[in-house]
Amino acid sequence: MVEVPEGLIQVLEDVATRLRIESVRATTAAGSGHPTSAASAADLVAALFFAVMRLDPDEPRSPASDRFVLSKGHAAPLLYAAWAELGVVPREALTTLRALDSDLEGHPTPRLPFVDVATGSLGQGLSAGVGLALGARWRGSDARIFVLLGDGETAEGSVWEAAQMAGHERLANLIAVVDVNGLGQSGPTMLDHDLRAFQRRFAAFGWTAIAVDGHDLRQIVPALRRARQSRRGPTAIVARTVKGQGLGDIAGQEGWHGRPLPADAAERVIAALEATLHHVPPPPVQRPRARLASRPQEQPLPEPRHHGEVATREAYGDALVRLGAGDPRVVALDGDVKNSTYAERFRAAYPERFVEAYIAEQNMVGTAMGLAAQGFVPFASSFACFLTRAADQLRMAAISRSNLKLCGSHAGVSIGEDGPSQMGLEDLALFRALPESVVLYPADGTATDACVLLAGRHQGLVYIRTTRMKTPPLYGLDEAFAVGGLKVLRASERDALTIVAAGITLHEALAAHHELAGAGILVRIIDLYSAKPVDGAALLEAARATGNRLLVVEDHYPAGGLGDAVREAVAGAGVIVHHLAVREIPRSGPPRKLLERYGIGRGAIVSAVRGLVEETPGAPAQRPAA
Amino acid sequence: MVEVPEGLIQVLEDVATRLRIESVRATTAAGSGHPTSAASAADLVAALFFAVMRLDPDEPRSPASDRFVLSKGHAAPLLYAAWAELGVVPREALTTLRALDSDLEGHPTPRLPFVDVATGSLGQGLSAGVGLALGARWRGSDARIFVLLGDGETAEGSVWEAAQMAGHERLANLIAVVDVNGLGQSGPTMLDHDLRAFQRRFAAFGWTAIAVDGHDLRQIVPALRRARQSRRGPTAIVARTVKGQGLGDIAGQEGWHGRPLPADAAERVIAALEATLHHVPPPPVQRPRARLASRPQEQPLPEPRHHGEVATREAYGDALVRLGAGDPRVVALDGDVKNSTYAERFRAAYPERFVEAYIAEQNMVGTAMGLAAQGFVPFASSFACFLTRAADQLRMAAISRSNLKLCGSHAGVSIGEDGPSQMGLEDLALFRALPESVVLYPADGTATDACVLLAGRHQGLVYIRTTRMKTPPLYGLDEAFAVGGLKVLRASERDALTIVAAGITLHEALAAHHELAGAGILVRIIDLYSAKPVDGAALLEAARATGNRLLVVEDHYPAGGLGDAVREAVAGAGVIVHHLAVREIPRSGPPRKLLERYGIGRGAIVSAVRGLVEETPGAPAQRPAA
Repeated sequence: MVEVPEGLIQVLEDVATRLRIESVRATTAAGSGHPTSAASAADLVAALFFAVMRLDPDEPRSPASDRFVLSKGHAAPLLYAAWAELGVVPREALTTLRALDSDLEGHPTPRLPFVDVATGSLGQGLSAGVGLALGARWRGSDARIFVLLGDGETAEGSVWEAAQMAGHERLANLIAVVDVNGLGQSGPTMLDHDLRAFQRRFAAFGWTAIAVDGHDLRQIVPALRRARQSRRGPTAIVARTVKGQGLGDIAGQEGWHGRPLPADAAERVIAALEATLHHVPPPPVQRPRARLASRPQEQPLPEPRHHGEVATREAYGDALVRLGAGDPRVVALDGDVKNSTYAERFRAAYPERFVEAYIAEQNMVGTAMGLAAQGFVPFASSFACFLTRAADQLRMAAISRSNLKLCGSHAGVSIGEDGPSQMGLEDLALFRALPESVVLYPADGTATDACVLLAGRHQGLVYIRTTRMKTPPLYGLDEAFAVGGLKVLRASERDALTIVAAGITLHEALAAHHELAGAGILVRIIDLYSAKPVDGAALLEAARATGNRLLVVEDHYPAGGLGDAVREAVAGAGVIVHHLAVREIPRSGPPRKLLERYGIGRGAIVSAVRGLVEETPGAPAQRPAA
Repeated sequence: MVEVPEGLIQVLEDVATRLRIESVRATTAAGSGHPTSAASAADLVAALFFAVMRLDPDEPRSPASDRFVLSKGHAAPLLYAAWAELGVVPREALTTLRALDSDLEGHPTPRLPFVDVATGSLGQGLSAGVGLALGARWRGSDARIFVLLGDGETAEGSVWEAAQMAGHERLANLIAVVDVNGLGQSGPTMLDHDLRAFQRRFAAFGWTAIAVDGHDLRQIVPALRRARQSRRGPTAIVARTVKGQGLGDIAGQEGWHGRPLPADAAERVIAALEATLHHVPPPPVQRPRARLASRPQEQPLPEPRHHGEVATREAYGDALVRLGAGDPRVVALDGDVKNSTYAERFRAAYPERFVEAYIAEQNMVGTAMGLAAQGFVPFASSFACFLTRAADQLRMAAISRSNLKLCGSHAGVSIGEDGPSQMGLEDLALFRALPESVVLYPADGTATDACVLLAGRHQGLVYIRTTRMKTPPLYGLDEAFAVGGLKVLRASERDALTIVAAGITLHEALAAHHELAGAGILVRIIDLYSAKPVDGAALLEAARATGNRLLVVEDHYPAGGLGDAVREAVAGAGVIVHHLAVREIPRSGPPRKLLERYGIGRGAIVSAVRGLVEETPGAPAQRPAA
C-alpha cells in the first residue's frame, strides 16, 4: 500500500478527535444518544471526509458530489460533527442534538441538506447507496457513494439484497464501509470481530472486500482510496473497531449502547481527547472535479392510448411509457414480475432507465429512494401483496419525503386461482397509514393513465393500485382526474343510497346498479379513485342526497382500506356508512366466484342494497310494482 | 459417494415421472398454475420423499416426523402429487387443484395437514425451516427439516437472514435444497446456473454446500442422505435443474413460467412421460424411528407482580416470565433489542427457550412461525416500528393461522428524542389489517400482565403494543381483562362526551379529565385496551350517554389505528367521532413536548374538549361559574 504522509495523518487524527469530542458533548447535553457508536467510526469518517471524498459542501445533493449515507443512523452525532468540520453545520448547533425544532435529530433525516435518505431503521442504507450509485452512473457522474454500516445491521437481509444488486450491476462507484465493533445493542453481534466472515460474505456477493484496522489511519486511507479508484465492481472496507474507542474506560465495554456519558465522565473524556490534539488545521475539502452535463429536457407527452377493455395493470405499463417519453427523469424498477405488472413495456421502450431488481422488494424500494435522491422519479412495481415486504423501507421513505412512486398489481381476491398468498388485501392499509402519502386506485385504462401522470407530477410518495383482470372502459380521454378527486358515475333524484367503490368493485357496483335499476331501485355510484386524500365534501354531498347512507365496497380486508377512508372523511356528519369487504381468509378459485363468495361481487351488492332499502321503508327508493 | 441400488433408482424415476404427470394434468385441468416449476424439482422431491425423509403420513405435524417446506410455493402441484404418492391426498383429488372449496389451493396453506406454513410469498420458507429445526431440537427429536427453495427466491434477503441464523445455531437438522433452474418469472435469474456462486454464498453463511445435477438421482440421493446425517451444521444441496424438465419442447424455455400446457400438448407430454415408466411400485414410507418423550406439563402460574409506576414494556418482560413459568410451550424471540423490550427477563429465566434472532426481523417472525408449527407458543418482540420489517411474513402468518404473538415496544411519538425512525406510528394499521388478528394495547403493568396471559391463551396471531415511558398504575390485580374488552375509567351522569384512548394517551386523557373537571367539564374516559376486536356495544352505550360524541386520542398516524377501529365499531349508529392523532411526520424531542406538539397530550385534549363543548351550547356539560 502507498504510504500516507505523516502530515495528513495528523490532520485526520485531529479531525477524528474532534468528532469524538463533539459526539460526546452533544449526547451528554441531550441526555441521550449513541456516543460509543459514533466513536467506533470516527477515524473512518475523518478519513472519508478529509482524505477520500470529493464533496460539494454548497450543494451536497449535486449528482457530481460524492455522497455519504450513514446507514448506522444512530451514529448521527458523528455525521453532524463531520459536517460541522466542513462548516455546513454551525459548530455551536451541535449541542442542540435531539432538541425539539433542531434539525439535528436523534437519527438523520433529509431535513438536513446533506442527508439523502432518513436512516435509523438499520440495514437500509446500502440499498439507498445502490440507487445513488446507479443514479450517478445514469447522470454521467464519476461521483462515488460511500455507505457506513454497522456490523450488527448486516444481519438484515436487505443488506444482502443490496449487496447482490451492487455486485450484479458491477457498481464500482459504490463503497461500503463496515464498522465492525463487535457489539450490538443488547449484546455481542453474531460475528464478533470475525473480519474474514464479513469478507467472505461480501466476496460471495460479488464485492472486493478489504479488511483494515478501523482505528489505523495508515490502513484506512489507502484502502478507501483504492476503493475510490475501483473500476471493477463495488468494494467493501471491513474495519475492525472498538465501540467507544477513545472514550476512556468504556471502550469495548458492553452495556454502553445508546447511553450518553454522565457529565463528569464526559468532561474527563473530552479533556483527555483534547490533550491528544496536534492542533493542525483541517485541509480544504476536495471538491468534485467536473460539472455534469445539464439534464435532458422534458419532451411533450405523446397522446394517451385509447383503451378498450383492458386490465388496469396493463394500462399502467402503457401509461408509464407515455410519462417516460415526456419526462426523462422517470425510471422504472421491477421485482421479477414485469410481465405481470406490465413494467416490461417501460423496459422495452427505455431499457437504459429500467432496473431489474429481481425478487428483492426491500432493495427495490431502497434503490428507488436512492434514485429519487439523484433527481430521478422512480416507479417501482410488484404485486401489491409483495410490496408489503418493503413496509419498513416505505415507512422510511415517507419520513424521507422521498419522491417515490409505487404500483401494486394483483389487488384483492379478484386475482382468483393463485390464492391468498398472492392477493393484495392489506396494501391500502399500509399505504394509507404512511404520512403524506397519496393513494390512487383507478378502475379503467383512461383513469390509470391519468393516475400515472398525476403520480409523476406529484412531489412525494404515491401508491397506485391496479387490478389483474380486464375491465371495460368507463371514461373518455378528455376526462379530468385529480389527486383528491372522485367521480359520480350514476346519479338520479331518487337514489336510495350511494355506493362508493374503486377498481374492480366499481365495475361490480355498476353491474349491481343495472340489476337494481331493473327492479326499480336506484343508487348513486361513486368512483373513489383517490383513496387518499379523499374528497370528503363530495362524499357528504352524495350521502345527503341519498338518505344519508353510503355503502362502501372494496376488494380489501375491512381494516385500513376504502371503508376506513370514507368513514374518516364523513365522520362527524351523521352519515351511516355500510361496508362490504373481504372478511375472512380467502381461498383459491375463479375470480368471479371469489368476488361473490367474499361478499363484494355484484350479487352481494344487490343483496346488500335490497336489505338496506327494505329495512328502511321510508327510504326514497322506488319499489317494483310486484 | 455410495452407490445407489439400481432398483431404488427405478422406483424414484417412476415416482418423479408420476409427479410430473400429475403436475401437468392438474394445472392443465385448472387452466392455471406452474407445471414447469414443478417439473424442475420433481426428481429432488421424489428422492426426498422415498429415499431420504422419515415421514409420519398419519401425523405429518408430529415433532418426530421429518418436515418438508415448499418454499417455492408455486410448485404446489408437485407437493400435492407427492402426498398423493403417500396416500394422504386421494389421487383423484389432484385435478381439483385451484378449484373453489378444494384445499389444494394455488399455493399451499395449512388447511392441509402436511403444510406447516403457507408459502407463495417467496423467500420465507427457510425461516420457517429454521423455526421447525430449532423446535425439533428443543423437543428432543432427531427429525430433519427439508426446505425446497427456488433459485430466484434466494434474491430475497430473508433467505440470508435464515441462512445466517441456521449457521449461527449450527442447525445440523436443517437441509436446504435449491432448485437452480436458472429462470425466474419474467426472465433469467441473476445467477443463472452458477452453482458455485450459490455454494459460496451458503458457505459464507456457515453452511456445507453440495452441488448436484438435480435430475440425476444417482447424485441426488447420496447428497441428500449425507445431508441428513450431518452433525456439524446446516447443509445446502444446490441442484442444477432445467425448468420444465421432462415436459417436451418447453424444457428450459423462457416464457413458460406460471403457464399450464394446452390440453393437446399436455396429452402428448403425459403420454411420453408414461412411456418412460418402469412400473415399479413405490417403496413403503420410512417412518420416524422413535416416539418423543411427552411434552412438559403445564405448571400453576406464579402470582402476578405488583407494579407501581412502570413502563408497559417492562411489565411485558415480567408477564412473559410469569406466563413462561406456567406454560412450557412459551418461548421468546428478540431482534437485538431485548434490553429495550425487556424480553431479556425471559431470557434470564429460561435461556433454553429464548432465541436471539439479532437484527433480522423477517427471520425472527418466520422462525417463530416454524416454532409455532412444532407446538410452541412464540412471543417475538422488537420496537413496534421494526416489526413492519416483517409485514409480509406477518401477512403469511395470518394466512397460515399461525399461533404467533408479537410485542411491539416504543410505540408512538412518546418515545421522544430518538425521532421518527424509531417511533411505531403505523403498527396498529399493520396488525389490525391482518385477518383474524387480535390487537391489545395495555396502559399499565397489570393490564399488560393480563394482555400477555390473554395472548398466550388465544389461539392465533396476537399483537401487544407497549410504551417506552413509565406510566402510573390504573388497575388492581383482581381486575379482569378480555379479548374484545374495554374499561370505563371515569363516568358521571353529566359527561359531555367520551374520550376513547389506550396506552400512553389514556394517561393523557386522565390528566385532561382532571383539569377539565376542575373547570366543571366532565367527560367519560374509556381504556380501549382491546383495539381488535373492539367492544362496539360498550362504545355505543358510552356515546349514547354522552351526547353521542366520542373523542379518540391515539399515539399513531390517523389511518388504521384506534380512530378507524372506533369509527368502524359505531358505524351506522349516528355517533360523532372526533379524532386526535399524529398528523405530520414528527421530530425528535422530549416525550411530553412531542405529545403536545402533535396534538395528543393532555393540553391538546383539554383544548379539543373545550372546543367541542363550547361549539355545542346544548351539550350537557357544566360550565364553570366564570
